Amino acid sequence: MQMKNLSLQTSRRDELVDLTREVQGIVSGSGARDGLCLVFVPHTTAGVTINEHADADVAWDILDSLNRQVPWGDSYRHGEGNSAAHIKASLMGSSVTVPIEAGRLALGTWQGIFFAEFDGPRSRQVLVRVYP
Amino acid sequence: MQMKNLSLQTSRRDELVDLTREVQGIVSGSGARDGLCLVFVPHTTAGVTINEHADADVAWDILDSLNRQVPWGDSYRHGEGNSAAHIKASLMGSSVTVPIEAGRLALGTWQGIFFAEFDGPRSRQVLVRVYP
Amino acid sequence: MQMKNLSLQTSRRDELVDLTREVQGIVSGSGARDGLCLVFVPHTTAGVTINEHADADVAWDILDSLNRQVPWGDSYRHGEGNSAAHIKASLMGSSVTVPIEAGRLALGTWQGIFFAEFDGPRSRQVLVRVYP
Repeated sequence: MQMKNLSLQTSRRDELVDLTREVQGIVSGSGARDGLCLVFVPHTTAGVTINEHADADVAWDILDSLNRQVPWGDSYRHGEGNSAAHIKASLMGSSVTVPIEAGRLALGTWQGIFFAEFDGPRSRQVLVRVYP
Repeated sequence: MQMKNLSLQTSRRDELVDLTREVQGIVSGSGARDGLCLVFVPHTTAGVTINEHADADVAWDILDSLNRQVPWGDSYRHGEGNSAAHIKASLMGSSVTVPIEAGRLALGTWQGIFFAEFDGPRSRQVLVRVYP
Repeated sequence: MQMKNLSLQTSRRDELVDLTREVQGIVSGSGARDGLCLVFVPHTTAGVTINEHADADVAWDILDSLNRQVPWGDSYRHGEGNSAAHIKASLMGSSVTVPIEAGRLALGTWQGIFFAEFDGPRSRQVLVRVYP
């Protein structure tokens, strides 16, 4: 099993950061021909999602829609003021799992793996695990 | 590892297509007694979810609720006009993982695996992978 | 592979029940040093999510926000009257997958694994599977 952590620095409160190239690099480095790749986010105000990475407007629309569904300034109990980020993290999820085939992530043509920041800017970690 | 792709043709813009029987068929064909089954959707305007497949009204209610949360005609940046489909794909997720036990998907009594079409009708693929 | 089922009794209609300790106990009992842990909910009106378990107000805010997005009393077709629970189950998802490292769930500092009840109180099961 290959275990690597990615470190990243986000630059806005809400941001989708494309990690596809970095994750594929870890898969390639592992030498695994097939198996599965788990991308896990160990934070509670960020998540991870797979969506289109050809047109940056898609990421913008996802973040904007989540902000309409879960407004930052709604009434919440949690005293830190970032409840919207926690809620959006659960809506996106804390991990994605992708099949590996012939040494490559079996992503569709338009798919990219995005770190989903909802309470940035922050320093973040992402765990990438390859299970051959 | 058993690797099979399902092909399907959806018939409406929004549709939940029950894949449970086809996925179980692939698990049975693999000969795996235990392990896990990953169902992965390589598209960015469709997802996959597990929910009740006994009463078709549940699927209808899920699609209707998603349309209220993410209206098709809201203002979006993405020029193709299908941003709502991208957003709903991320809300549902691009994969489900189900334990395999005694050669069967360990689904609950009421659970079925649904392909979630949000920008049909289209020809679609689903990757089904069995990891013993 | 270690296969254990957790049984729990929920006490309210909407409730996030922290299972982190029980899941870690199963991982420890398996003797696995690394691999992955799949927590799967075999129900259609409940899900599972990872979020902050230090401050109970976060769980309260998540449930409250989901109730605003998916009101219990909206117009639905499904005759049992619990469509909101089905929809919220699909939004949260039916499983979480966590890497195991050095015999421990590789959760972040603030992360806990929560059973997400949306149609309680009920007796529920959770499948915990360790794949070394």
